[in-house]
Amino acid sequence: MVGVSILALAVQSQVPVSSASVDGGDGRVYLWIALTVGVLALVAALMLARAVIASDTGTPEMQAISNAIREGAEAFLRRQYKTIGSIALVLAVVVFVGYKMSPRTSPYALKTVVSFLVGAVCSGLAGFTGMYCSIRANIRTASAARTSLNKALQMALRGGAVTGLVVVALSLLGVGVLFLFFGGLEHPQAVPYQLVGFGFGASLVALFAQLGGGIYTKAADVGADLVGKVEAGIPEDDPRNPAVIADLVGDNVGDCAGRGADLFESTAAENVGAMILGAALYPVFGVKGILFPLIVHAINLIASIVGVFVVKTREDEDPMHALNKGFYVTSALALAGFAVAVYTMLNGPQVQPIWLLGCGVIGLVTAFLFVWITEYYTEAIYRPVKSIVEASVTGPATNIISGLAVGMETPAMPVVVISAALLLSYYFGVQGLAGVTGISDYAKGIYGTAIATMGMLSCAAYILAMDTFGPITDNAGGIIEMSNQPHEIRDRTDKLDSAGNTTKALTKGYAIGSASLAAFLLFSAYLEEIKTIVTDKVALADGYMPVGWSFTNINLAQVPVFVGALLGAMLTYLFSSLAIKAVGRTAQMVVKDVRDQFKENPGIMLGTSKPDYARCVNIVTGAALKEMVVPGLLAVGLPVAVGLIFRHLSSSYQASSALYAPGTILPVPAIGGVPVNLAGAEAVAGLLMVGTISGVLLAMLMNNGGGAWDNAKKFIETGQYGGKKSEAHKAAVVGDTVGDPFKDTAGPSLHVLIKLLATITLVLAPLFV
Amino acid sequence: MVGVSILALAVQSQVPVSSASVDGGDGRVYLWIALTVGVLALVAALMLARAVIASDTGTPEMQAISNAIREGAEAFLRRQYKTIGSIALVLAVVVFVGYKMSPRTSPYALKTVVSFLVGAVCSGLAGFTGMYCSIRANIRTASAARTSLNKALQMALRGGAVTGLVVVALSLLGVGVLFLFFGGLEHPQAVPYQLVGFGFGASLVALFAQLGGGIYTKAADVGADLVGKVEAGIPEDDPRNPAVIADLVGDNVGDCAGRGADLFESTAAENVGAMILGAALYPVFGVKGILFPLIVHAINLIASIVGVFVVKTREDEDPMHALNKGFYVTSALALAGFAVAVYTMLNGPQVQPIWLLGCGVIGLVTAFLFVWITEYYTEAIYRPVKSIVEASVTGPATNIISGLAVGMETPAMPVVVISAALLLSYYFGVQGLAGVTGISDYAKGIYGTAIATMGMLSCAAYILAMDTFGPITDNAGGIIEMSNQPHEIRDRTDKLDSAGNTTKALTKGYAIGSASLAAFLLFSAYLEEIKTIVTDKVALADGYMPVGWSFTNINLAQVPVFVGALLGAMLTYLFSSLAIKAVGRTAQMVVKDVRDQFKENPGIMLGTSKPDYARCVNIVTGAALKEMVVPGLLAVGLPVAVGLIFRHLSSSYQASSALYAPGTILPVPAIGGVPVNLAGAEAVAGLLMVGTISGVLLAMLMNNGGGAWDNAKKFIETGQYGGKKSEAHKAAVVGDTVGDPFKDTAGPSLHVLIKLLATITLVLAPLFV
Repeated sequence: MVGVSILALAVQSQVPVSSASVDGGDGRVYLWIALTVGVLALVAALMLARAVIASDTGTPEMQAISNAIREGAEAFLRRQYKTIGSIALVLAVVVFVGYKMSPRTSPYALKTVVSFLVGAVCSGLAGFTGMYCSIRANIRTASAARTSLNKALQMALRGGAVTGLVVVALSLLGVGVLFLFFGGLEHPQAVPYQLVGFGFGASLVALFAQLGGGIYTKAADVGADLVGKVEAGIPEDDPRNPAVIADLVGDNVGDCAGRGADLFESTAAENVGAMILGAALYPVFGVKGILFPLIVHAINLIASIVGVFVVKTREDEDPMHALNKGFYVTSALALAGFAVAVYTMLNGPQVQPIWLLGCGVIGLVTAFLFVWITEYYTEAIYRPVKSIVEASVTGPATNIISGLAVGMETPAMPVVVISAALLLSYYFGVQGLAGVTGISDYAKGIYGTAIATMGMLSCAAYILAMDTFGPITDNAGGIIEMSNQPHEIRDRTDKLDSAGNTTKALTKGYAIGSASLAAFLLFSAYLEEIKTIVTDKVALADGYMPVGWSFTNINLAQVPVFVGALLGAMLTYLFSSLAIKAVGRTAQMVVKDVRDQFKENPGIMLGTSKPDYARCVNIVTGAALKEMVVPGLLAVGLPVAVGLIFRHLSSSYQASSALYAPGTILPVPAIGGVPVNLAGAEAVAGLLMVGTISGVLLAMLMNNGGGAWDNAKKFIETGQYGGKKSEAHKAAVVGDTVGDPFKDTAGPSLHVLIKLLATITLVLAPLFV
Repeated sequence: MVGVSILALAVQSQVPVSSASVDGGDGRVYLWIALTVGVLALVAALMLARAVIASDTGTPEMQAISNAIREGAEAFLRRQYKTIGSIALVLAVVVFVGYKMSPRTSPYALKTVVSFLVGAVCSGLAGFTGMYCSIRANIRTASAARTSLNKALQMALRGGAVTGLVVVALSLLGVGVLFLFFGGLEHPQAVPYQLVGFGFGASLVALFAQLGGGIYTKAADVGADLVGKVEAGIPEDDPRNPAVIADLVGDNVGDCAGRGADLFESTAAENVGAMILGAALYPVFGVKGILFPLIVHAINLIASIVGVFVVKTREDEDPMHALNKGFYVTSALALAGFAVAVYTMLNGPQVQPIWLLGCGVIGLVTAFLFVWITEYYTEAIYRPVKSIVEASVTGPATNIISGLAVGMETPAMPVVVISAALLLSYYFGVQGLAGVTGISDYAKGIYGTAIATMGMLSCAAYILAMDTFGPITDNAGGIIEMSNQPHEIRDRTDKLDSAGNTTKALTKGYAIGSASLAAFLLFSAYLEEIKTIVTDKVALADGYMPVGWSFTNINLAQVPVFVGALLGAMLTYLFSSLAIKAVGRTAQMVVKDVRDQFKENPGIMLGTSKPDYARCVNIVTGAALKEMVVPGLLAVGLPVAVGLIFRHLSSSYQASSALYAPGTILPVPAIGGVPVNLAGAEAVAGLLMVGTISGVLLAMLMNNGGGAWDNAKKFIETGQYGGKKSEAHKAAVVGDTVGDPFKDTAGPSLHVLIKLLATITLVLAPLFV
């Protein structure tokens, strides 16, 4: 009796997998709408790209530089994809074999591997296409800057919009098409689980793309600065510096391809996670609940296209105003579309959609707050950057101390915002579905947080366009600088470049915010996955299908869970350490090569002969690709090792129940009579959750600390506190250099690490039980 | 049926509180042994102190300096204790009122407040006595250094031993006497819960002592260096620098009083936590299991006294060898005593004491491994410091980057060691008590980890003596330097000073190691406390005493727990940020005052008139005391706020069950029929556990990173890479300055924060349910 009442609390109706076509017709319509919008968005991206490419490409001198950048970037991406491809193939085999080893997962082995490979290919394709366009938009932006600020702004944003549209459209199409081909319209509840491979493929590529690109960009940057500005005393972007092209290539492969892959993977993981939760709510919304995330991204695409075309600036205006106007238009349209979608798709007799729309609003508000907090911590008009500027007067040590203090302060506000967003959207979810019976409050609340995440990501394509705007304008500035264009043109690109720095910082805030909000959604997907595995196992073992058991208990007071948590937090530190050290080592190789070139060919410094840019590009490429492997494999390997070790540790200790306490697997033996060992799955969950928390905080420290150092330096360069060449400026340069690998290598790689942890645990969950 | 089988898994026999005197006689003996040893250790400390004070005090010049240090340190401590005292009184009222508000806790209100105040007073007394002796031992060590290295070494170590003995003895006596007066021999199971106030009092004082002292010492150090070495170009410890006495005072109030309070609080919290677990195991060991931790510390005292007297060095020997020999002797004796205690006290027909002794061995081995890992990361002969040294050649930016990379790498090995120690000691605990029925495996395993913690802390008094050795020799060096003694005497104090730097770093490794191992013990004590509260509440409400319910579930998958966890991790970052900024602000005040003094009195720099040391000391004192309040109150306030807010949030949402999921409080309504709202208690547990993990990792980053920077600088000063005045040295000085507030303010304060979180949650647990 008591047991039954306990189980009743956790009840969650278990509809047989085959009886799923109550509203298949409805579902078909939404799926086709989403797919059509996805295709149209790709067409729009193609047209934008053609329009950009058809534009004027400036002087032959400019073209020479742009071509060198293009060749370097494409060569890097080619070699990088080869490395990632081989790692992905090995993992595909591991996943296939792992799935084949159990009779339960064996039927899904091929589907999981296929979706893994499709995810990886789509992610690579998104990164490549985006970069293809941005390394062509840079010179067109530079050329347009010779006419007007507005033209240059529009050129850069539209070039960036190609990345934004391709990323979101490919994520939508990849998930949608797989859903269709795997028979999602016939078995809508089962298929979302088979798509987890897509998210894993996407995050695997994203991790290596961001790590490799991040190491590349900062190694080239730091190396070029150390040997050029400091040793040789030549200005930044000086064509005599052999590392200058590598530096410009880095902007593309790090900021552009890297962040593209990062946000591709955010939307992919969020799509799949939300569809899994939608499957759990199938009795309420039918297939519409599962397809809702795809429709949200279709809206995202349409709103973002409109937003991009709204952007227009006057010659004397701050380009940030124009970009912000586009963002507001996109958000408003996305919100309107979101409301329509909620009332159409997430509705029903027992549902109060106003609460669910509220969840979406919470997500959008969270996005705005994150953007605002990032501005507060990284713009020179506010206290944090000012404190670093003042500390620079007393030298590099105080600059560093106060920068680190600012960095450590930065997680406070975002954590409060995320906490409020989680609590509120959970509450709203429960309220909105209060009339629904047969679904636990837990599932309702979690679905509320999932809707908030979708709300937050509902303007992702525009944000991504603004982000890619950054490296394009940065490159345009470099091209103008290196080709000795007149002063007023440089002023225009400087203005755009400065706006680009801001958008890059904001995107990082947005990305980490969405990662932390999505974290809970992905945890829940993992728990749902474990639940399905266990119920299937029990059913297979004794022909008895348990009803209503749910796995929602990750008990930190258990030693294995706590140890998993410790290891998860440790992973984020060690990973960051490795990433930072990789930048240092690669930068040393740049320094060495440039010194060698200056020695071998004295004509370079005299300006009589051209340095060998390609040699330097080659060296950075090789080194960055080598260096990305160890931290990448650590991130992939540790959760797998913890899952497998604890699974076996604990089952060998099973007789004595050591490492294992009552309360954890409670209902399972009671239901099926089959003892199921969950220590591995739980330890991994501890690793995942606490690793996520630690990773989010560390990433905020590094992103915002790095951004604050950067802008403290820029503020001094405007002439304050002695301006350039003053002691304060020297100190600020030290801080900026320290911040570089923080904000452009370790920080963004941590975003991806967090999501990789979520997807890898989802895919490999069957091996941990 | 199912329910019963579930509960059977969690069974834990609930012996009525009054039927407890099965072996009261036995208990009496052990309690008196422990108390007697405690008193004898105080007598030994007194004799040591008299012997030290009776020694020669050198030249009048030396005495003048020493007196100035003494006055400054005593003035700081007096004012600091006033501030802490008023905060403690306010908290005492809060606790009293809080306890009085519920009929359940009302009878314990007075006892809890009394033990809180006794804990606070003992902690203050331990800090004061230790410092009283060390600020007198410094000049005697300096004077002894004029005769021989051995005499100076012994003087410094014996001066330090006073701190070690007083700290451990007062902790033992405080807990033991309270236990006796609260009727522990009559009600051995109930009284340990009434002692939680002792640990809270101790950690409150420790937090402010370490924070205030840490801010003081580094503000004076950084300020003196900035204005002395950098601006005025005078050497370190130059008597013309008005901040030089403040700097020497800082070594005492930060390293000596601060760390003394820190380890007082470690042993106090560990004593109380282990006694609570002992109470849960009362059916197995009787009162002996409860008194075991006190006997372990009695052994600790005896072993450490012997260890201190063994230390002897030759003139040409590295003093570290002699200190290590003492450590080995202490450890061996402690282990032998531990074995005797285990076989005498933790024995019985169903117990296999060899496994429990194994837990103690794990603890000791963990201590050794932590010490070794700390050496690896902070000594110049190993890779990490070498990498910082090499990076210094290319300037301060690369020095900082590689130092941070080293810092972020440092948690990896310790986390693996702690994980292994937890898993193994849990397993050993289960094995050792495998024959015992009626106790859950969980309780057995956790008791195993508790024994490991006691093993680790069983040489705490010697470690503390080695630690206090550090500031004494540092001061002795300063006195010799300022009083212009001959070269060979300086060489002796330099040797001792260098050994003191090593012992200080090792103690930090030891302290953080014991904090992380003890963490699990303290979590469990918290869970036990919540369990008792709930069962009492249920019993009060319907006269039904639940049997076998246990609260061992902190479910991270619940939104309130996860939000608590996020906030806990955030707290460690924000707290560190505040501590570091406090150092920066206070250092600026030192700089300003020294500049003013140079301007007002030009005779100072000419050496014709003496600077006003006391003015500078006063300024740092006032500023450090002001600055310690905000971070301190944040640490105290956040867990309380989370507990109270979630308790009310959730109960106002109770109707809809929002913020609240099934699975959490499962057996409670089933048993007593009384709904109990645990969301507050659980959110606090999430905050406590993840805050601990995050705090441990951050503290390791800061302690070891700071230590590595320090030694990288020292290594270059030995003449490597250009030696003093080279560019590499300048870069290394920047790293060292950045590391200062890391390793001596924020890092050690985080140790105390972690333990404060544990004790404050224990004491205030009744308010959260």
